Amino acid sequence: MSWTIGEKLKITVFGQSHSEAIGVVIDGFPSGVTVNVDKLESFMKRRAPGQAFSTPRKEADKVEFLSGLNVDGKTCGSPIVAIIRNTNVQSKDYDNIKLLPRPSHSDLVSLLKFGEGRDIRGGGQFSGRLTAPLCIAGALCLDLLESKGVKIGAHIYSVGNSFDLPYDKVDEIIPNNQVDFPAIDKNQSAKMQEEILSVMKEGDSIGASIECKIVGVPATIGEPMFDGIENCLAKAMFGIPAVKGFEVGAGFDVCKKKGSENNDELTVKEGKITTVTNNDGGINGGITNGMPITFRVAIKPTPSIAKAQQSVNVESMEEETLEIRGRHDPCIAVRAVPVVEAVSAIVFANLLI
Amino acid sequence: MSWTIGEKLKITVFGQSHSEAIGVVIDGFPSGVTVNVDKLESFMKRRAPGQAFSTPRKEADKVEFLSGLNVDGKTCGSPIVAIIRNTNVQSKDYDNIKLLPRPSHSDLVSLLKFGEGRDIRGGGQFSGRLTAPLCIAGALCLDLLESKGVKIGAHIYSVGNSFDLPYDKVDEIIPNNQVDFPAIDKNQSAKMQEEILSVMKEGDSIGASIECKIVGVPATIGEPMFDGIENCLAKAMFGIPAVKGFEVGAGFDVCKKKGSENNDELTVKEGKITTVTNNDGGINGGITNGMPITFRVAIKPTPSIAKAQQSVNVESMEEETLEIRGRHDPCIAVRAVPVVEAVSAIVFANLLI
Amino acid sequence: MSWTIGEKLKITVFGQSHSEAIGVVIDGFPSGVTVNVDKLESFMKRRAPGQAFSTPRKEADKVEFLSGLNVDGKTCGSPIVAIIRNTNVQSKDYDNIKLLPRPSHSDLVSLLKFGEGRDIRGGGQFSGRLTAPLCIAGALCLDLLESKGVKIGAHIYSVGNSFDLPYDKVDEIIPNNQVDFPAIDKNQSAKMQEEILSVMKEGDSIGASIECKIVGVPATIGEPMFDGIENCLAKAMFGIPAVKGFEVGAGFDVCKKKGSENNDELTVKEGKITTVTNNDGGINGGITNGMPITFRVAIKPTPSIAKAQQSVNVESMEEETLEIRGRHDPCIAVRAVPVVEAVSAIVFANLLI
Amino acid sequence: MSWTIGEKLKITVFGQSHSEAIGVVIDGFPSGVTVNVDKLESFMKRRAPGQAFSTPRKEADKVEFLSGLNVDGKTCGSPIVAIIRNTNVQSKDYDNIKLLPRPSHSDLVSLLKFGEGRDIRGGGQFSGRLTAPLCIAGALCLDLLESKGVKIGAHIYSVGNSFDLPYDKVDEIIPNNQVDFPAIDKNQSAKMQEEILSVMKEGDSIGASIECKIVGVPATIGEPMFDGIENCLAKAMFGIPAVKGFEVGAGFDVCKKKGSENNDELTVKEGKITTVTNNDGGINGGITNGMPITFRVAIKPTPSIAKAQQSVNVESMEEETLEIRGRHDPCIAVRAVPVVEAVSAIVFANLLI
Repeated sequence: MSWTIGEKLKITVFGQSHSEAIGVVIDGFPSGVTVNVDKLESFMKRRAPGQAFSTPRKEADKVEFLSGLNVDGKTCGSPIVAIIRNTNVQSKDYDNIKLLPRPSHSDLVSLLKFGEGRDIRGGGQFSGRLTAPLCIAGALCLDLLESKGVKIGAHIYSVGNSFDLPYDKVDEIIPNNQVDFPAIDKNQSAKMQEEILSVMKEGDSIGASIECKIVGVPATIGEPMFDGIENCLAKAMFGIPAVKGFEVGAGFDVCKKKGSENNDELTVKEGKITTVTNNDGGINGGITNGMPITFRVAIKPTPSIAKAQQSVNVESMEEETLEIRGRHDPCIAVRAVPVVEAVSAIVFANLLI
Repeated sequence: MSWTIGEKLKITVFGQSHSEAIGVVIDGFPSGVTVNVDKLESFMKRRAPGQAFSTPRKEADKVEFLSGLNVDGKTCGSPIVAIIRNTNVQSKDYDNIKLLPRPSHSDLVSLLKFGEGRDIRGGGQFSGRLTAPLCIAGALCLDLLESKGVKIGAHIYSVGNSFDLPYDKVDEIIPNNQVDFPAIDKNQSAKMQEEILSVMKEGDSIGASIECKIVGVPATIGEPMFDGIENCLAKAMFGIPAVKGFEVGAGFDVCKKKGSENNDELTVKEGKITTVTNNDGGINGGITNGMPITFRVAIKPTPSIAKAQQSVNVESMEEETLEIRGRHDPCIAVRAVPVVEAVSAIVFANLLI
Repeated sequence: MSWTIGEKLKITVFGQSHSEAIGVVIDGFPSGVTVNVDKLESFMKRRAPGQAFSTPRKEADKVEFLSGLNVDGKTCGSPIVAIIRNTNVQSKDYDNIKLLPRPSHSDLVSLLKFGEGRDIRGGGQFSGRLTAPLCIAGALCLDLLESKGVKIGAHIYSVGNSFDLPYDKVDEIIPNNQVDFPAIDKNQSAKMQEEILSVMKEGDSIGASIECKIVGVPATIGEPMFDGIENCLAKAMFGIPAVKGFEVGAGFDVCKKKGSENNDELTVKEGKITTVTNNDGGINGGITNGMPITFRVAIKPTPSIAKAQQSVNVESMEEETLEIRGRHDPCIAVRAVPVVEAVSAIVFANLLI
Repeated sequence: MSWTIGEKLKITVFGQSHSEAIGVVIDGFPSGVTVNVDKLESFMKRRAPGQAFSTPRKEADKVEFLSGLNVDGKTCGSPIVAIIRNTNVQSKDYDNIKLLPRPSHSDLVSLLKFGEGRDIRGGGQFSGRLTAPLCIAGALCLDLLESKGVKIGAHIYSVGNSFDLPYDKVDEIIPNNQVDFPAIDKNQSAKMQEEILSVMKEGDSIGASIECKIVGVPATIGEPMFDGIENCLAKAMFGIPAVKGFEVGAGFDVCKKKGSENNDELTVKEGKITTVTNNDGGINGGITNGMPITFRVAIKPTPSIAKAQQSVNVESMEEETLEIRGRHDPCIAVRAVPVVEAVSAIVFANLLI
């Protein structure tokens, strides 16, 4: 099924933008673990709207646990279900989309696929809001992984033609909850923010890439061929709306490189065999080699823009001009950074519990 | 398990480079279908070694069906199992790897993960040879898809800094079995071949990208979030050895684009709503929109190169220089083109049967 | 994961006896279907406590839909999540179980498996209350199946040494919502009720068997070997608490029969090949043959009885006498009848959508 | 898919009675294990035909390993594939079945389901011969389990109206390879053999039940609801042809028992809490409690009998009398005993590796 990820630790997301609630089922989580509610809430805030560069809509994103905890607040070995009520629902905003599918949105496929069952309100089940329950599961997994010595950090790697410092130039994982804009280099951060402000003024949006680094994963995790680390991560990352590309280590740069440039030669560090460079992004043959795991995802520009666009009226079958009302994220990638961390945490929690 | 892909049509690959045989189990294939053996053999040849730019090793790759066919050669609704005997096995060639893991190969992770079970001969289960059984399954799926009006074609999109014509400039799927080198544009094909010849002379190898286009898939195929077309394709593609990146439609280029540039505006063609451009690569919200599906994979340079490299002796734990004997593919991507088609066919056969 | 059943239509149950809520995720249900709330509530009542022969505890079992429906109350193609709040929670009742595991209950394995995460309240996740969300999913599936011409009916087949009329003596499926006690033959129904009243007075409980019949399933459904109808039904039925046996058609009686007695000879009816008898219960080689599908499950006596029993104090490790307070179902099978129908419906909905 | 069982250790059976070969894929087996070929062959013999009370057909059942072993004969962590060539193939024997489906066989459903793809030869994929590859996987699993202190033994529990000693009266697991007829009590064994001889003379067959006992499984194995031990065992057991019932512990006897009779009271033995009786068959709430696991399966009489039976000609749609030529097992349960052990071993290997 489409809404579930993971095998040992099965995460199922549910809800639509305007349903009673959105939520997540976390099945397979170890028992006896105390949920760190403060950490969870602080993590959720990073994804929530209402921040700089994001839509000013307010979502309280108050997490309510329905099951899976015992009387002491410890996980009881049964599915943890947590929901967020949809309170700030204004269905009127979306009336014009009903007949005029938004370009590069899922409006058209939703209509074709679900027919009269389609939930048009706020993008229905295709809404980016569904990443909030992913973050609930991710926060629990991040905490679990930290207890096993695994840390995960993502940052905006590029916006338009401005690039941040790549993560392999930095030793430590940057704690993203202490910054306004999730970037490593201050100067580059400013440039990337300028790119966003510039398109914002035009009523346009801009694409970006996110880089993620995972440290502390021991060697030998993952399986050859179809259950390798790359397969699992890629499958999971394309679950995040707007992702159109995924690359590991040197990624698409390998296409331009020679073997003698790209191969990670071996050396010995602290009594262990390790690699001098990390073009393979910590993975060989689908299996971790002990080096940091690094990958990047391409996030397309928010398709909802203020600028006039050509659509087709699904009743008259005539071309019409669509003008999307309301304000939208000029660079959705900014709020996707914690989602990338959350989904990475779900993948690695599956591999390491 | 790592060696299986697909749910409705479950493909399981097995074997090691030097085991008695390699092979594939195809479970879920429709019954009553006649296997087109000629088409199968002609497809297998495209992947086989012994061609221009590839290792001169000869692999007969003779396909033998063990089960799944009835007395008339029709599929009987039970798992189809086909094998290829490993005949040309020279285990001596690989003795020096035992102590000296090859950089950017799976030798080290194989040793760490499988210990004394490790099959060192010819790369064991990590050998690119395992893509041959994938091609058996792929050939059957391609035939099945063709009967449903779906065509799949891949080509070398770039080698080093030389680029072929992108597939969205071409209307038809190019039949790859009629060309020596799987490219669209003749001039660019020549340039890409030169790049390969050049690194070949240096005892080096080079990376490349492969582009694939699928036409004839109806709209509404795929599911939102984790079982979208992109998730399925990405998971499958990283099963091909040496793949380090996957992108759909405009791919990583979206990071540099504005919404107004990237959005695929809608129009009407032959009574159907379609898009003017195809930056989304035929997929919205994980679901096909009826446009051709386009994607690219990054293939790293063959890690086995003649040039001296630094490795570590796993017994003495001392750095040593490794020189890999024998001849290897200077650009493994060339032989990976039919594998990309095969794996795409497996993915779409799963979605369309 | 343990709490999920089904592949095409994935049903996941969650909650504990005393958690905030119990509920179910129904992923894969067709879109555009209107949920029949009246039918749902009437079905839920059949399982609810507070009836004749059942524990007098009151559970409102008010079903609340959190997601999966659009603004018109139609299924939108996304996971349907429905919950029941746990309102009538009296945790005090269960304090003495904490140290004294109840014989033939899951108290001991729960303690050993979940340690300090264990949810002792009301049996935690092992509570029979978890069958309520199964009934929500089942009610939706029953309605869906009815629209495809499939009907499912179960009845108490035996209590102690009293037996109802077997279902193959009856042509029609009996609508269970019109009777107090789910049996076919009135006289036998009275005898079975007497057996229950008799043990009830003794502060004891009694086992029973439930028979289920499914009509309208076309031939050729199911797969050989591990995905046959019997495999799917058996796996699912043992998900109902207290089930200790499952048999199809003639079931364990086949052990005493000769081939010439047990074989279902073939004949022609209304132009179709069918069988004279139905000892195979409508299934050959895992696949439906078009005859009614019949099976029985064995339900053990409720382990919670008023009579004194020997337990062991988990702290002192001394044997102690346990007396379970409160009133419990003297024959839990009575309330399990709709659950058997619900779980059957889930199995066949998976096979037929 | 139908031919696969297990998740961590995935066993896929393939082949038809008269295909080139039948075989098994064992994916997920630990690496570095030496396959005990002698033990494997001795186990295979117990299932092979040509024994007392079985069809005199000779099947060499020579096991050939195609993959999964390294140069030292150790498992290499990759799928182990083993096949048995079908050599003794006489397709003529089955010609009359083509038009006249055998009662209570899968002939009719095979025709309806697979149409012209149907493999009529020797029962095609429905042949009992497919249990041979199950035994290969089972033998490897039995060996693996033995190294973890788990032993599995099955025996004929009843034939017609003759019953063996139940396994809970015996402390040790009986090594079945040392007896001609797999029963515990010598006198009862003789009676059961007489029942078989008696029906054999009549050209008839007889049903039987098999009991299985598993010792050494620690407590806490299994999950609540749908992934309990009973669910897994039941699902797997119905994969064995001719199984029509499955019961655990006291099984269907619970239907006649009171709670005070059926509950397993607790006591302390060797410092551990254990039960006085074992009516629950070692399982509570789907989870092992440390007691021996006991279950029984009902095996229907071989449907292939010499006696004349009524069938229907699928072309003329007229009733015709069918007389099945050749000799068949008068009590197929005898050869199913090692298969029950093998399938149990597959289930528990999945749970314990």
